[in-house]
Amino acid sequence: MIADIINIGDELLIGQVINTNASWMAERLNSIGIRVRQITAISDSGDHIKSSIDEAFRFSDLVILTGGLGPTKDDITKHVLAEYYNSKLVMHEPTLQHVEHFFNMRGRTITELNRRQAEIPECCEPLTNLNGTAPGMWFEKNDKILVSVPGVPFEMKALMEDQILPRLAARINGDVILHKTVLTQGVGESFLADLIAEWEDALPANIRLAYLPQPGIVRLRLTATGNNRGYLEQAISQQLDSLMKLIPGYVFGFDGETLESVAGELLRNAVATICTVESCTGGYLAHMITRVPGSSDYFKGSVVAYSNELKTNLLGIDHGLIEKHGAVSREVVAAMASSARNLLNCTYALATSGIAGPAGGSPEKPVGTVWIALAGPNGVEAKHFLFGNNRERNIHITALAALNMLRLVIKGNPVSAAK
Amino acid sequence: MIADIINIGDELLIGQVINTNASWMAERLNSIGIRVRQITAISDSGDHIKSSIDEAFRFSDLVILTGGLGPTKDDITKHVLAEYYNSKLVMHEPTLQHVEHFFNMRGRTITELNRRQAEIPECCEPLTNLNGTAPGMWFEKNDKILVSVPGVPFEMKALMEDQILPRLAARINGDVILHKTVLTQGVGESFLADLIAEWEDALPANIRLAYLPQPGIVRLRLTATGNNRGYLEQAISQQLDSLMKLIPGYVFGFDGETLESVAGELLRNAVATICTVESCTGGYLAHMITRVPGSSDYFKGSVVAYSNELKTNLLGIDHGLIEKHGAVSREVVAAMASSARNLLNCTYALATSGIAGPAGGSPEKPVGTVWIALAGPNGVEAKHFLFGNNRERNIHITALAALNMLRLVIKGNPVSAAK
Repeated sequence: MIADIINIGDELLIGQVINTNASWMAERLNSIGIRVRQITAISDSGDHIKSSIDEAFRFSDLVILTGGLGPTKDDITKHVLAEYYNSKLVMHEPTLQHVEHFFNMRGRTITELNRRQAEIPECCEPLTNLNGTAPGMWFEKNDKILVSVPGVPFEMKALMEDQILPRLAARINGDVILHKTVLTQGVGESFLADLIAEWEDALPANIRLAYLPQPGIVRLRLTATGNNRGYLEQAISQQLDSLMKLIPGYVFGFDGETLESVAGELLRNAVATICTVESCTGGYLAHMITRVPGSSDYFKGSVVAYSNELKTNLLGIDHGLIEKHGAVSREVVAAMASSARNLLNCTYALATSGIAGPAGGSPEKPVGTVWIALAGPNGVEAKHFLFGNNRERNIHITALAALNMLRLVIKGNPVSAAK
Repeated sequence: MIADIINIGDELLIGQVINTNASWMAERLNSIGIRVRQITAISDSGDHIKSSIDEAFRFSDLVILTGGLGPTKDDITKHVLAEYYNSKLVMHEPTLQHVEHFFNMRGRTITELNRRQAEIPECCEPLTNLNGTAPGMWFEKNDKILVSVPGVPFEMKALMEDQILPRLAARINGDVILHKTVLTQGVGESFLADLIAEWEDALPANIRLAYLPQPGIVRLRLTATGNNRGYLEQAISQQLDSLMKLIPGYVFGFDGETLESVAGELLRNAVATICTVESCTGGYLAHMITRVPGSSDYFKGSVVAYSNELKTNLLGIDHGLIEKHGAVSREVVAAMASSARNLLNCTYALATSGIAGPAGGSPEKPVGTVWIALAGPNGVEAKHFLFGNNRERNIHITALAALNMLRLVIKGNPVSAAK
């Protein structure tokens, strides 16, 4: 089954609201094997709504509309649908009782506008909206389905989960779509493409590959389509095994995982603790680690030593070392990591020092120059990076690279890592 | 001018990525007076891309495409555009030099796939992408404009801000649209609406108000439309004066300012320094301060004391104080601020302690309980907050509230603030 999603609302077209409904619906539809052909955001205009439905039905068997079902004048969806299906609005008594009950329960006075929310096109089947007053509506004509739901996310989600998706799933026979996403860090998109070119060329016709780059991370998404779930699961699993052999060091996780959650889980399993000592990342590395719920199990703290004064006074870094090599150097970043590991009494200490930009660069150390060090039970390792010109991006990628260093070291030393 | 936005990428149609590009672009296009008619998300399919462009040009003068410009096989946009405009791909030498330079600067090896990113349809004008290797492309035919940009948000945004929006703005003649955005912190949308209801009702017909809520911040955007720039500027300025009198304490800045840049500027002007000592914000407050370029002028550093051990050992907080009042208390957060101010030798120290969630709450101190303290030349102030259940949101709003405390204290004590 192929679907179009049409989201109605001016707020989407002036950029006031991000269309999170569409991605949620697309994900849920895909999960039951319905492929989304197009997502369209339009304003509350009758002609535009009708022409968008026509266009969608040229290619799709299912159209899901959101929005335009409120009680106010700018909400016209159900009037337009009545016209579209040559039907008329009639009062639906069970819905009216639900609306009245909804208001009584909340001690609110019902208005004529609210009552009219129980009017629906005669030809549709209403879907009770337990979380609001505007019902969902199910239309069916010539084997094409149109479903209209409110734009309020939690009303839409409940209608989809409880009524629409189960009903659609029961209709579908055959098509299964499976996704598996491989997460990589530390390798550019085109370099990665070269590494896996032969494997990619040999993929069977029913498995597609997509590259999804983000700053510092490239995600590889495998999509398998067919009619036998078991067979597809096996096919994806085989391809995954071959892929992993080609790029083992770069893959840090799968699907919804993050580098900070993966690294955190490794620390937890090793009963190890971590602290950070940050110059160029300015606290962002600590923030990445601590935005994971439960990170207090392994994260002890951080010293953000932005000024050299702090590097000397608080961390005890030799002033002469900074004078001789500069704060952005292998020597200083290694000393920062070692000092913090002792001072904060942790299994591991991650240190960053670099020139995030836009100012502070020199011919020898241009903007984007970064040193990262990791101190652990087996000593200190430091690594040099050269990123780009964008400050926020440099900070973000530095933190990712640091977490990946931590991940690789823990995986390489699973026993000695435990404190 | 009327525009369509077309976002290309399978990741949008399977719900893996939320289409934040579209809302950002729609907001920016609206700000220069371009109305967005439709936002369409489609897959990397040549036929679908071409039919979507055709459909868009039936109603719009401008089509902006994002995505499908990467170096890999699934990226087909520029091939499709070459076909659409009956043109052919040619190597663009200046772009090739840029791509080579881009790789050399990063010490990375250039591949044949990367080189091909410099191939563009002969009929288009390339737009140099300083943040990446795929150039933007500007097509023009029969008074209709098509612009193609990469889907990577920061590459797209830089191309839009630096090249595309200024060029489009210069094209639009006649209507003058002026925007002024007032930035508030520490007040909810509906409470704010009540405070300014009378003023809002009395706005003249050519000035519209929009509420743009974000976590912790509500932006109020005034939009004036007409044909006389001078008159409109005066009208907006008058309305702004009246508005400011109604909500003086909540307004921290205007338009593109951020709370961290405003607070940073106040510190710089007062020749004052700041440090942070963070528990629940876990480094995020330091990150907010240091993501402002030049923040090393006033930011010395931070201690993220996630564990109580660190609060005691590194900051010298009395263990008995933590035992008696708990780490999330007025007493402990005030002690953290005072201690850090001395230890890091700064004019001001901002301290946070709270329960970000999802775990760690109790009936007396539920998730969302936060204490913030500011130590300065005039002593220590501490304030209690109760935010919500969402961890990331609690961390973000706590940092905003802390920066707003700093801002208000510096503004109240402009002389004594200087160290």
